[in-house]
Amino acid sequence: MTQSKKIAILGASGYTGAELVRLISSHPFMDIVALSADRKAGMNMAAVFPHLRHLELPKLVKNDEINFNNIDLCFCALPHVTSQNVISKLPKKLKIIDLSADFRLRDAKEYLKWYGCEHDALDLQTEAVYGLTEFYRDSIKSARLVAGTGCNAAAGQYALRPLIKAKLINLEDIIVDLKTGVSGAGRSLKEGLLHSELSEGSHPYAIGGTHRHLAEFDQEFSKLAGKPVKIQFTPTLLPVNRGIIANVYVKGDPQDIYNEFVKVYSNEHFIKILPFGETPSTRHIRGSNYCHIGVTGDRIEGRAMVIVTLDNLTKGSSGQALQNANLMLNLPEEMGLEMAPLFP
Amino acid sequence: MTQSKKIAILGASGYTGAELVRLISSHPFMDIVALSADRKAGMNMAAVFPHLRHLELPKLVKNDEINFNNIDLCFCALPHVTSQNVISKLPKKLKIIDLSADFRLRDAKEYLKWYGCEHDALDLQTEAVYGLTEFYRDSIKSARLVAGTGCNAAAGQYALRPLIKAKLINLEDIIVDLKTGVSGAGRSLKEGLLHSELSEGSHPYAIGGTHRHLAEFDQEFSKLAGKPVKIQFTPTLLPVNRGIIANVYVKGDPQDIYNEFVKVYSNEHFIKILPFGETPSTRHIRGSNYCHIGVTGDRIEGRAMVIVTLDNLTKGSSGQALQNANLMLNLPEEMGLEMAPLFP
Amino acid sequence: MTQSKKIAILGASGYTGAELVRLISSHPFMDIVALSADRKAGMNMAAVFPHLRHLELPKLVKNDEINFNNIDLCFCALPHVTSQNVISKLPKKLKIIDLSADFRLRDAKEYLKWYGCEHDALDLQTEAVYGLTEFYRDSIKSARLVAGTGCNAAAGQYALRPLIKAKLINLEDIIVDLKTGVSGAGRSLKEGLLHSELSEGSHPYAIGGTHRHLAEFDQEFSKLAGKPVKIQFTPTLLPVNRGIIANVYVKGDPQDIYNEFVKVYSNEHFIKILPFGETPSTRHIRGSNYCHIGVTGDRIEGRAMVIVTLDNLTKGSSGQALQNANLMLNLPEEMGLEMAPLFP
Amino acid sequence: MTQSKKIAILGASGYTGAELVRLISSHPFMDIVALSADRKAGMNMAAVFPHLRHLELPKLVKNDEINFNNIDLCFCALPHVTSQNVISKLPKKLKIIDLSADFRLRDAKEYLKWYGCEHDALDLQTEAVYGLTEFYRDSIKSARLVAGTGCNAAAGQYALRPLIKAKLINLEDIIVDLKTGVSGAGRSLKEGLLHSELSEGSHPYAIGGTHRHLAEFDQEFSKLAGKPVKIQFTPTLLPVNRGIIANVYVKGDPQDIYNEFVKVYSNEHFIKILPFGETPSTRHIRGSNYCHIGVTGDRIEGRAMVIVTLDNLTKGSSGQALQNANLMLNLPEEMGLEMAPLFP
Repeated sequence: MTQSKKIAILGASGYTGAELVRLISSHPFMDIVALSADRKAGMNMAAVFPHLRHLELPKLVKNDEINFNNIDLCFCALPHVTSQNVISKLPKKLKIIDLSADFRLRDAKEYLKWYGCEHDALDLQTEAVYGLTEFYRDSIKSARLVAGTGCNAAAGQYALRPLIKAKLINLEDIIVDLKTGVSGAGRSLKEGLLHSELSEGSHPYAIGGTHRHLAEFDQEFSKLAGKPVKIQFTPTLLPVNRGIIANVYVKGDPQDIYNEFVKVYSNEHFIKILPFGETPSTRHIRGSNYCHIGVTGDRIEGRAMVIVTLDNLTKGSSGQALQNANLMLNLPEEMGLEMAPLFP
Repeated sequence: MTQSKKIAILGASGYTGAELVRLISSHPFMDIVALSADRKAGMNMAAVFPHLRHLELPKLVKNDEINFNNIDLCFCALPHVTSQNVISKLPKKLKIIDLSADFRLRDAKEYLKWYGCEHDALDLQTEAVYGLTEFYRDSIKSARLVAGTGCNAAAGQYALRPLIKAKLINLEDIIVDLKTGVSGAGRSLKEGLLHSELSEGSHPYAIGGTHRHLAEFDQEFSKLAGKPVKIQFTPTLLPVNRGIIANVYVKGDPQDIYNEFVKVYSNEHFIKILPFGETPSTRHIRGSNYCHIGVTGDRIEGRAMVIVTLDNLTKGSSGQALQNANLMLNLPEEMGLEMAPLFP
Repeated sequence: MTQSKKIAILGASGYTGAELVRLISSHPFMDIVALSADRKAGMNMAAVFPHLRHLELPKLVKNDEINFNNIDLCFCALPHVTSQNVISKLPKKLKIIDLSADFRLRDAKEYLKWYGCEHDALDLQTEAVYGLTEFYRDSIKSARLVAGTGCNAAAGQYALRPLIKAKLINLEDIIVDLKTGVSGAGRSLKEGLLHSELSEGSHPYAIGGTHRHLAEFDQEFSKLAGKPVKIQFTPTLLPVNRGIIANVYVKGDPQDIYNEFVKVYSNEHFIKILPFGETPSTRHIRGSNYCHIGVTGDRIEGRAMVIVTLDNLTKGSSGQALQNANLMLNLPEEMGLEMAPLFP
Repeated sequence: MTQSKKIAILGASGYTGAELVRLISSHPFMDIVALSADRKAGMNMAAVFPHLRHLELPKLVKNDEINFNNIDLCFCALPHVTSQNVISKLPKKLKIIDLSADFRLRDAKEYLKWYGCEHDALDLQTEAVYGLTEFYRDSIKSARLVAGTGCNAAAGQYALRPLIKAKLINLEDIIVDLKTGVSGAGRSLKEGLLHSELSEGSHPYAIGGTHRHLAEFDQEFSKLAGKPVKIQFTPTLLPVNRGIIANVYVKGDPQDIYNEFVKVYSNEHFIKILPFGETPSTRHIRGSNYCHIGVTGDRIEGRAMVIVTLDNLTKGSSGQALQNANLMLNLPEEMGLEMAPLFP
């Protein structure tokens, strides 16, 4: 019989931390043995996240109060910069999944350019494996440090990687118009995130090619294409809590594109290709680890649109992280992740 | 090893039907072998509820296409009146859980008064056990036909049954001011349920003591008290999809009331009593089978308020039904029902 | 021809300040000549509230940069405590409408008890007139300083004042179960006000008779009754931006109560009594200065429920303030306030 | 002194009809003298739209009960097809503004292609003037029959007309990714418009170049360019009631584009160009007749994005209609339309 793995979660007072706890609480072979939140150390999770009140969980402590020798795998759900500092001090053999942006980029100059500060753990950055499970599965299995992807970056890549790899689209004209729920911005106190400011309306943000997840698109798509690829990407904030949905406009043959998706994803448990011409919706993946993809053509020949949707907190971050953890711990990849979406 | 139980769900195209499928899809010892929906017979569930797309489910059929000999337990998620007609024709030995109002009331005259029509299956009405699990557990275990409670009726009873039984409150002055999400109204095409009509606002409905769930309150509270008890009950519609929360105003000693709740519910897996004076929220039970209860006093001596919250589709109907099904099938009561709430 | 009145608004960077600007921008005889917001001094209103971008407005300045000699009337939309400090330094002849809680209570001990600090402008507190227009109209006309009411306090008083005055209800058993939109909490950075925390759910707050608007209810109802009156009052937060709706449970004859409302409010422009038994909704007064009131009985004889709804930012604060300003400036009371609600 | 104009509204039980009533109720020189709604004839508007309860309005009647000899201008807010039938029977001298799609297209074959039926009033179709005020102002002034534009078509044209006319963009690569509120779908009973189905999520619809407003884009853009122009256009449904916001992706110089907007719209009362690089939001135009436009470049040279937002019920239909009515009745164009947006 498999023995339960001992899990620590650093940064458990944020939404991705809470989502990890929610998911792991249904995982048959993982036990949460440590939870940290520096500013809320000493509190119970029930006080920080009352929806977890029914669970027996360790008290929140400071990061340095945790004895990592007992830990099989550590999730790090801290902000970037903080994350690299904390992780660089953790035991060098500890399996770690980082949900921040700190270990996603191979090129330190790119990190500096997009995140505005020097990286202080360059050796770890080199060691880290990019955590987009379906495309880095083998590397993740044997990795010690996995860098969870950006939630928008995950959505865009599910739509575009197969098409770039199979050379099915024009690389000069790719537009990702993405809509995202509010929880992606985290639990931070910003005027723009107040209910009165955000509800009953919508607006794009990080316009003009300035969103940081572009760094991941650049890195991954250029690597795949063997030459620099730059896409246009604009996110729009939706007055909903969970869910990303993107219209990905490409030039290519819609039917070829559809066939490629069916081929590439046919054995992927969490990626579902809808019948040609059908439209996915964020409501139909909310709270789950599933990703739905639709393909349509246009009345203009040679144009196609890929529509991809996933839950930013689940498949876009904490669910992806758990999927990777299963691989790193030699457990079935989908374990603890098969709950159905919550609708309505 | 336990063998999986074979489950049928009648009326699978409504929200309580879909919620049963969602819950049962994570249940280790239940298999859905038949799904019916008369008007949508022939369709796949994925077309009716795309959030269930990832599941392998039987096609929707008409009720009379199901071979009930293969079925261990049948959930009936049909509208009232339809329900009694369908159930009266089912095999007399089939275990059934009805989620409609048809078998909740012992007194046929009360049914006529509140539902406006004669009951056509009076013998079954007598046989049925009222499905409020925590208070009818033993009867449910040996029942053949269980009548799921009204979702509001469940919420009100969790707050009031212990207090009436222990004679802790004045029976003349009980007010249940309840707020409920929209999904309780079902998937029916009514102008008042359109997004444009309902969102960004709130209003009470069924005012003046006219809501049908009062029939359940009357029956159950009068039985408990040994004399007629009538409460005031007003529901208010919230622009949210899931969740009921009720302020229950009573005259009695707040601390005695609190102590009674702690005593009565201490061993109940799904009922959580918050520390005295703390406030529950619908957000913290959404999508789960948990019920949170808070108690507070008032600046006026001898007054107390009980606040109770549960998810109308889960603990208020389909989760309750599955909890009862577990009992009827001799499975652990909480099996398949321990998922954490979805927040945010 | 009437000459336009010169208006200043202190605290223009909050929601009540912005609402004043919105309303006054359609007022034919008022000009906004000064806007203050200490922390945002130097900014344009368009940067603080882009929905006012189309208006020509003075820049935001600090309070002490305003020359009050040019001002006909000053609205003060500052937080309590700040408000008394600022107002005590304004010219003694300046007409002022304060929207904070600082001048609502006649009894300094009550202010200390509910607001937790000594009042520093007791002489002004004595001078101030309570701003519930329909009941203090004559005093307001000749007042120099008017204290706008609490938004919940306004709603509760519209339902209860006529009934207490006409001795139609039992004063021992009054329960106001009120639901309120989020904007009532202002634009402050609190975790609990984030969209991810607040949307898609509901919960009561300030439970147990602790909400500060109780101080207004106590003062006004006791004065009306000629003896101490204490009511129960619990607010519940709705995931909507605007709107208050209250179920007011009383013991009395529903038809007598209805008749009294019709009599008292028949000439009131902004108070609309619905036909007996009809239900008001926050959606139908949103963005307007109207207040809708419904009355119903109950199946229990001698019980009635009054349902009252108004927009917390309009009739509950800034609209009320403008209505009072019209009176103080000898303009028609309803001027600039007759816009229809926004639905859907 | 100007005498009030007598106004009729056909189809007053829908959202655009109610919006016309809301707007006209604040118009100083218009009186509503007739309201029709065939299926609700005999009812009061207060029963159909309780937010208009405070207004004195004529009862709803059938279309043919109206004496059009007394009418100065008639708004027709009926569904397409119905609209052409009704309008073809109205007096030939009556000034009419039609809000349906029936008179927007010059080419009967295009009407057949997009709307799936023959047009039965071809002579009127020829006579009708397209109602995009800022670009057809002179024709509208002298028109008898004006065809209100599609709400999405209005938004797209405000972004693209100046750029096509000034030859600033590549006509082969125009993508309009538009997000729209729910009220655009009207008050019809469709499962997909229920609150439980729509709230807390988002999805595109009419994908693949199938949305009917493409017919207007084709007609207007091709006329402007002097050759066939086809754009890509995908709408996404937002869980909000009001508001359209579109990201319009074009190839051209961002600064030139910005300068052109400033030039073209500098004297337009209702079109506001934001400073370069700023982002508009639906919240900041809600309930108003204003349209906000932002322009940004991209990190890829030669790419620009125009962001345009307007309220679909106001500037997108009923506000536009009233603006046109003012022109047709020789009243100031902005009369009754200057109310500020409602925020929050």
